[in-house]
Amino acid sequence: MKDDAFEALTVETLPARLSAIPEIATRVGGAPSGWKVREVGDGNLNLVFIVEGAKETVIVKQALPYVRLVGDSWPLPLKRSFFEYHALTRQQARAPGTVPALHYFDETQALIVMEFLSPHIILRRALIEGRQLPKIGRDLGLFMARTLFRGSDLSMKASERKADLALFADNVELCDITENLVFSDPYFEAPMNRHTPGLDGLVKELRADRDLKVAAQRMKHAFATRAETLVHGDLHSGSVMVTDDETKVIDPEFAFYGPMAFDVGMLLANYWMAYFAQRGHEGDESRNAMRAYLLGVVDETWHVFRDEFARLWRTERNGILYQAALYEDQDDGLAAEQALNHVIHDLWTDMLGFAGIEMHRRILGLAHNADFEEIADETLHATCEAAALKFGRHVTVNRNTIQSLAELDALAQALDQRKLS
Amino acid sequence: MKDDAFEALTVETLPARLSAIPEIATRVGGAPSGWKVREVGDGNLNLVFIVEGAKETVIVKQALPYVRLVGDSWPLPLKRSFFEYHALTRQQARAPGTVPALHYFDETQALIVMEFLSPHIILRRALIEGRQLPKIGRDLGLFMARTLFRGSDLSMKASERKADLALFADNVELCDITENLVFSDPYFEAPMNRHTPGLDGLVKELRADRDLKVAAQRMKHAFATRAETLVHGDLHSGSVMVTDDETKVIDPEFAFYGPMAFDVGMLLANYWMAYFAQRGHEGDESRNAMRAYLLGVVDETWHVFRDEFARLWRTERNGILYQAALYEDQDDGLAAEQALNHVIHDLWTDMLGFAGIEMHRRILGLAHNADFEEIADETLHATCEAAALKFGRHVTVNRNTIQSLAELDALAQALDQRKLS
Repeated sequence: MKDDAFEALTVETLPARLSAIPEIATRVGGAPSGWKVREVGDGNLNLVFIVEGAKETVIVKQALPYVRLVGDSWPLPLKRSFFEYHALTRQQARAPGTVPALHYFDETQALIVMEFLSPHIILRRALIEGRQLPKIGRDLGLFMARTLFRGSDLSMKASERKADLALFADNVELCDITENLVFSDPYFEAPMNRHTPGLDGLVKELRADRDLKVAAQRMKHAFATRAETLVHGDLHSGSVMVTDDETKVIDPEFAFYGPMAFDVGMLLANYWMAYFAQRGHEGDESRNAMRAYLLGVVDETWHVFRDEFARLWRTERNGILYQAALYEDQDDGLAAEQALNHVIHDLWTDMLGFAGIEMHRRILGLAHNADFEEIADETLHATCEAAALKFGRHVTVNRNTIQSLAELDALAQALDQRKLS
Repeated sequence: MKDDAFEALTVETLPARLSAIPEIATRVGGAPSGWKVREVGDGNLNLVFIVEGAKETVIVKQALPYVRLVGDSWPLPLKRSFFEYHALTRQQARAPGTVPALHYFDETQALIVMEFLSPHIILRRALIEGRQLPKIGRDLGLFMARTLFRGSDLSMKASERKADLALFADNVELCDITENLVFSDPYFEAPMNRHTPGLDGLVKELRADRDLKVAAQRMKHAFATRAETLVHGDLHSGSVMVTDDETKVIDPEFAFYGPMAFDVGMLLANYWMAYFAQRGHEGDESRNAMRAYLLGVVDETWHVFRDEFARLWRTERNGILYQAALYEDQDDGLAAEQALNHVIHDLWTDMLGFAGIEMHRRILGLAHNADFEEIADETLHATCEAAALKFGRHVTVNRNTIQSLAELDALAQALDQRKLS
């Protein structure tokens, strides 16, 4: 199959085509005619098949040469599959066990065969249902610290990092999506935008807010130019699969060398949005516990990330930055600790900047979150989103002066009580 | 010649080999046996020939697979010639007339044939001789604003910039030289360092200075990760050729995508060092005028750079950053002006950070400046360098709080009076 021209798989053609790959035929097991194949892609971009054989069930993910949701009027290159595959191999090496096991990759067919995760569900779905996952704060805090630290000049050989940077620099089209849909479109009347009726006044206010518009473009500037590490690039609660015991990160096709705090900000933004969506389930008493849980997850994620980053700084800092040789013979290591504090300060500031933007683009832009979309009452829907918009504005514009998550908890709680105005 | 394996040219072999290239044979003119060939490379890395024919004189620059100054114990890839050639073509397109005209490039032979500049001399030499060049402030301010702005996401198509970023990301070895020799070695007892006797106390103090060591590594972090634009990468007064009427920038083999203010900081640092070297010519009355001239050049360079950058921001901002569509319909353009102020603030801060480091590495590291080296009296030599070291420490550590060049003029003048202590 490898040398053929690209051809999209279907439920019907998949068994014959996949069974021509010996290692996959053996892994799945049994006669291909007996394989159960379902297409389950619920994302916007790709085909996703579950293939159940006599021995094993696997996932087959195939990119299409356009955005699936929109059709061939919006072309999107197949090479995103190449970047997804290479990002997965790097994440697996840097944070073992945090991504699905990879079985096979075919670049021409833009196809990845990987581990079928079961009984995992998408984290966003779990949070909407009010489930309190006990391990996500710790697991994703560690995932981010390890992948982001180990993919940077703090850890990698400079020549290897520069070669990798060049490789991922070709992921232009997916970066372009983020650059436009996340950082720009929400802040003016772009054609693909939409927002909930009832938000017109607030939307108008935000789009006239000079400080916000400048801050958003400052963050875009950082996104486009600061090639600090290999980021996942789309680390929201829809890119995480969970059980109570296990957390797996999927879908890194937006991966590129970008600012370290981008993934952190995007993930925390999605927890904050889940928090503001709780009010949409008014009357359900368990939702108060869910609110406390979500603020706790934000806190745990950040602190696990920060502490693991500091641990790696102290034990694995073998790259060209802040070299131990410069510091170790003096000051009992105080200079290296001072530098670490500066770096963490910047991560914090950037995280806040990116988080607010992510909250805005999910309410003002093209891609909305199910957390809010599934709130049936339109006024309640708008009320929840208004609180998130105001919170997002605050954290992005004031990112340089916000001191602690406790102060953001207080703001979130206050905004969560307000009427739509 | 193109398909042959690399072979270093000599004065003897050059005519026969170069005359095999029809466009060069025609350009130089006359019988190759009559060409006058001189080898004049006084830099550390390459061969440079002047070839004088019947019609035209040209420069032939050829890289060697090692550092010329050291020999083949320090290998350095020939591909630096490829980066030099491509940087020159981009500089020529972005700031026409500021670099030598290019006649021919042979990648395998690591060879560039270009315009012979006459009667130009190296700017550093001119400044040491006490010559006041009237046009350098304006010419180099414009050169930097135009090349740095037009090579960034403020101007280029994102896909073209990312492809170019990937191309130059392979310039690993020359970046590695800067990363080590500029940003790290000066701040600890690295093997290749040397400094003037008499500075031992101050050197020890600086290498124990925690704030300085942290600041230096913060700037290195910026250098290694912030791929903002195609920088020249080695823009000191030895990389500029001048007459009273013309200013040409040469030798961009260190070019890569880095922070916008790197070139600006390095250039201003070399003016400040020229200033502190004036005291080495004590007794020569004309040197007071030279001091005033040099501080004036710093001022003019910065302000021309800043004003031209602002002009390009207002008239050529066609890239993905701070898009006009976001701003133009509101506020009478105030948001775009506010963003410009933020960007210029960062350029200023970064410029100061890089300038101080450049001053340190020229006194504490491997590559020293003729400005200081040619001061015969050892105590005077050390006294001049001590003032530069203290000035460099101040601007790098206090880069976030320095408001104006006037305040730095006052500091420079005060340090210039001090005894060595």
